[in-house]
Amino acid sequence: MMQRWKLTLEYDGRTFNGWQRQAEPHVVTVQGCVEETVYKFCQQNITVHVAGRTDAGVHAQGQVCHFDLDYGDRALDGFTLAKALNALIRPHKIVVLHAEKASDDFHARFSAINKLYRYQILCRPAPPALLDGRVWHIFRALDVEAMRAGASHLIGYHDFSSFRSTFCQAKTPMRTLDAIRFSQAPIDSCGGALVVMETESRSFLHHQVRNMIGTLAQVGMGKMAPDDVRDILSARSRDAAGPTAPPDGLSLVRIDYA
Amino acid sequence: MMQRWKLTLEYDGRTFNGWQRQAEPHVVTVQGCVEETVYKFCQQNITVHVAGRTDAGVHAQGQVCHFDLDYGDRALDGFTLAKALNALIRPHKIVVLHAEKASDDFHARFSAINKLYRYQILCRPAPPALLDGRVWHIFRALDVEAMRAGASHLIGYHDFSSFRSTFCQAKTPMRTLDAIRFSQAPIDSCGGALVVMETESRSFLHHQVRNMIGTLAQVGMGKMAPDDVRDILSARSRDAAGPTAPPDGLSLVRIDYA
Repeated sequence: MMQRWKLTLEYDGRTFNGWQRQAEPHVVTVQGCVEETVYKFCQQNITVHVAGRTDAGVHAQGQVCHFDLDYGDRALDGFTLAKALNALIRPHKIVVLHAEKASDDFHARFSAINKLYRYQILCRPAPPALLDGRVWHIFRALDVEAMRAGASHLIGYHDFSSFRSTFCQAKTPMRTLDAIRFSQAPIDSCGGALVVMETESRSFLHHQVRNMIGTLAQVGMGKMAPDDVRDILSARSRDAAGPTAPPDGLSLVRIDYA
Repeated sequence: MMQRWKLTLEYDGRTFNGWQRQAEPHVVTVQGCVEETVYKFCQQNITVHVAGRTDAGVHAQGQVCHFDLDYGDRALDGFTLAKALNALIRPHKIVVLHAEKASDDFHARFSAINKLYRYQILCRPAPPALLDGRVWHIFRALDVEAMRAGASHLIGYHDFSSFRSTFCQAKTPMRTLDAIRFSQAPIDSCGGALVVMETESRSFLHHQVRNMIGTLAQVGMGKMAPDDVRDILSARSRDAAGPTAPPDGLSLVRIDYA
C-alpha cells in the first residue's frame, strides 16, 4: 500500500549543488541524495517533492519534502525511517530531523502556509574561521537601524520584480512579505558582530531573500538611504536594486503547514 | 628594536592537532601555523606563547598569544599586521581577530586573570549536519535544572583531582572555579535543543572542562543525582567522575587581562 511520508531535513549547503537533481550523474544534489538513500533503504525509486528549492551553498535547518512509498504490509514508523535514512545517507551532510506519515493530499510545497528564512552577516575585519561558509563577510559594522527602516518598505503585498532573479520561473512577481526582523549580537571578544535577518512569507521568488539582503546591506553600509528601498521596489526592475548576496549566509529555517 | 605583540585568534579545532607544535613536521598545529605565517611575513623565526593550550578538536573564538618581533625601523601597526597574517595564513582555518602592541612584561598565559570556555551539546535523535564538529551529540533531552544543581558544588576553591586528566602537568590540583552557567535554546523546528555551558576560572587543569561536562551530562541524563557531584569532587580521584566529553563541543571564548 502506498503511503505518503513527510520529512524535515537539515543540510549543509556548501557540499551540494543545490536541491534539484541534475541530469549529470556526478553532480551531488540534496534531492539526489535523499532519493538514492530511500532506494538503499527499500530498493524503491521515488521522486521527492520539496517545499522550497535551495540554491548551491544555501543551508537548511527545516527543509520539508514528501514522497510516496510502497512498503508492503510491513510496519514502518517515522522514528525508524528517520534513523535508517540517517545511517544510510552518510557521509553526505544531510540529516532527517523528523519523518512522519502524511495524508495523500499533503504536498510539501503547495500545502505550505509560511516559510522562514534566516540570513547571517559577519561584520568585522577578520574573515570567518568558525563560520566559514555560513555567513556573508562584510568588513565593517552595519547600521542595523537603517536596515530596519529600509526593510519596512518591503512588508506587504508588492510587485517584487526588482528583487527577482532574471531566471525566476514564477508566473507572477506579486508576493506578500509578512515579516523582516533584524538582530545583532557580538560574535567575538574583539568587536565583531553577527547581524541576522529573518524574513517570512508564504512564498518567495527566486533569489528574493538574497536580493533583498544585498540591497539592505547597501543601506546598512550607508551607500543608500532607507527610503531608496521604496524607490527600488517601485522601479520593478532588477537593475534598480543592489547585488545578490552570497548563498553562504542563507538558511531555510522552518516551513509551516496548516 | 624588539616589540612584543599580542594576538587574539579564532580557529576551527577540527583541522589542527591541537595548539602545541609537534616534533613531526607534517603534524599541523595552531602554534606551528602562526609561527610559520609570521616567518612568511617577515622572515623571522619566533616562538609564540599561548594563554591556554587547546587539545586537538577544541575550537577558539578568543585565544590569545604573544611573541617578540624585530621589525627594524619600519612602522607596523596592529591592523596591518592582522591583515597581513590573515592573508598569509590561508587556507588554514585560523584568523587573527586583533593584533596589538604589548608591553614587555605582558605574558599571554601568566598575565591572564580570567578564562571563559563554552561547551555545546546538541540534544536530539538526529546527528548534526550543520553543527558537525562543533557539538557533543546526545540523543535525548537533558535536565538542565539538575545539571545546574550539580554544577553548583564545583563553584569555589577546590581540589579538582577528580576532573583532571592523568596527563595533567600542573603542580597542584587546587583551582578556583568562578562560574558555571547553563542555557538551553531550540536548535531546529523538530524539538532539538542546544544546551550551552559557560565556565570561568583564572586557570583550568588539563581536560577539566571536558571532564566536568562529562559528569554533568550524566546528571542531565538522570544517571547521577546532582549531589553525587559533591561526592565525586571529594573523592579526589579521576575514577570517581564521568567520562571525558568529546573535544568538538568545546571552545575557548575569551581571556581577560588586567
